Amino acid sequence: MKKVAFQGERGAFSEIAAVRYFNNNISLSPSLSFSEVFEKINHGKVQYGVVPIENSLYGSVFETYDLLSEYSFPIIGELNLQIKHNLLAKKNYNLKEVKKIYSHPQALGQCSAFLKKIKSAEIFPFYDTAGAAKIISDSEEVSAAIASSEAAKIYGLKILRRNIQNNENNFTRFLVLGKRPAAKKYKKPKSSICFELKSIPGALFKALSVFALREIDLLKIESRPIPHKPFQYLFYVDFQGNLDDEVIKLAVAHLAEISLEIQKFGTYETGKTFYG
Amino acid sequence: MKKVAFQGERGAFSEIAAVRYFNNNISLSPSLSFSEVFEKINHGKVQYGVVPIENSLYGSVFETYDLLSEYSFPIIGELNLQIKHNLLAKKNYNLKEVKKIYSHPQALGQCSAFLKKIKSAEIFPFYDTAGAAKIISDSEEVSAAIASSEAAKIYGLKILRRNIQNNENNFTRFLVLGKRPAAKKYKKPKSSICFELKSIPGALFKALSVFALREIDLLKIESRPIPHKPFQYLFYVDFQGNLDDEVIKLAVAHLAEISLEIQKFGTYETGKTFYG
Repeated sequence: MKKVAFQGERGAFSEIAAVRYFNNNISLSPSLSFSEVFEKINHGKVQYGVVPIENSLYGSVFETYDLLSEYSFPIIGELNLQIKHNLLAKKNYNLKEVKKIYSHPQALGQCSAFLKKIKSAEIFPFYDTAGAAKIISDSEEVSAAIASSEAAKIYGLKILRRNIQNNENNFTRFLVLGKRPAAKKYKKPKSSICFELKSIPGALFKALSVFALREIDLLKIESRPIPHKPFQYLFYVDFQGNLDDEVIKLAVAHLAEISLEIQKFGTYETGKTFYG
Repeated sequence: MKKVAFQGERGAFSEIAAVRYFNNNISLSPSLSFSEVFEKINHGKVQYGVVPIENSLYGSVFETYDLLSEYSFPIIGELNLQIKHNLLAKKNYNLKEVKKIYSHPQALGQCSAFLKKIKSAEIFPFYDTAGAAKIISDSEEVSAAIASSEAAKIYGLKILRRNIQNNENNFTRFLVLGKRPAAKKYKKPKSSICFELKSIPGALFKALSVFALREIDLLKIESRPIPHKPFQYLFYVDFQGNLDDEVIKLAVAHLAEISLEIQKFGTYETGKTFYG
């Protein structure tokens, strides 16, 4: 059985993403941090890791971008997961009885309209949504947590209210990483690379032109600071196509003319979206 | 006297940035959050706000980008400040005596090499560097805080060790915001805008070409998600030049042809760098 690492406690949204992607045929390896996920892949403790790369409300997850460049593992897949928050508790409390509500600050923010209506409860930020579900399951307080419905199953909690997030358009895109690229055919291949540009006028425009001139569809561009070079950036791009296609090879060779360094994270199938 | 708002307690790096920029001729208005800074400008409680926009090690400050677009205040200036961390305490303790060290998680991370050598102290993450200096000044514990040397002055603390950060290349760029643009001449004008592109092939390439074709130097590009449109982005760009220059006006008009919306944040003098 495939071993898959993710960051967070059991019931975290990264676990849900892993289970959806691999269709349940996996053994799960919860990890304390994103870098622990990368280290487990590196040392062969797991075959795969599932990490968030961007959220449609909050933007990119920079730690993941920086670790991608540090470890240079191939991306073997991706998926989009709709984020649905629920209010969980040990018993079927009336909302007015609940004294404390725990969750990750981002989840609390995403449910602010719902929380405003509950005047009787104090709000406590916690490091993790699933971790919040875990602690209330161990506690004697009349408390609740905001977390996934999977966390309710895992920790034996009741769902007091479903889908309490302000905005339905809350999606997180996850990457599936391995140590070796998946050798297969793709229906709609997508590729990711990053590069550091030479200091030449119009460098970024020239970099994007290597794709535009060949009609390669650019899907995302992200920049990250280079730590030892103040206010210089590493650019990460996703584009439609296979790194083995002739036209993509030519584009990457063209990009190399104006880059100091290029890293390739591989080709993978464009991700599906899972709702709820 | 000009009133200037910044986020953080007295002694925060944003306060140092404000004092360097305005040469001390200001009355300071500490604020709980970035949005409080924007609200104070909006309601005329202060004339100016000073907010961080990017750090050379950690990257962009997204909350600032999102608030820029929400309030659309003109940027009237910028500066770069070298971030130097110090270990502060109430008395000239020997390092071995210190039992607890408080600071913001980023500051703790930036001083990790120094902290590894102090085996006797426990490390406590705190919401703010200057706030950490403030609480140890009120406490009877043998504790220390990592913060600016200005925080030491403000809270009457001793500097046990200076410049304890891992990396000297730690700079934060700050923006100075007002409610009205500063009408003046510039030595080296810089301008900032943001735009939402139409859904057309090669849209970002075409957007950058409006600058490249006119030899306008693009200095920074950043993308932020649009909350109600999953995986679509608002692009923020900084470029050399004045929004009143004929060539820049033409470039912006050209950009408008392929954009749904353009916001202009104004023209300002390219920032100086302040060391330590």
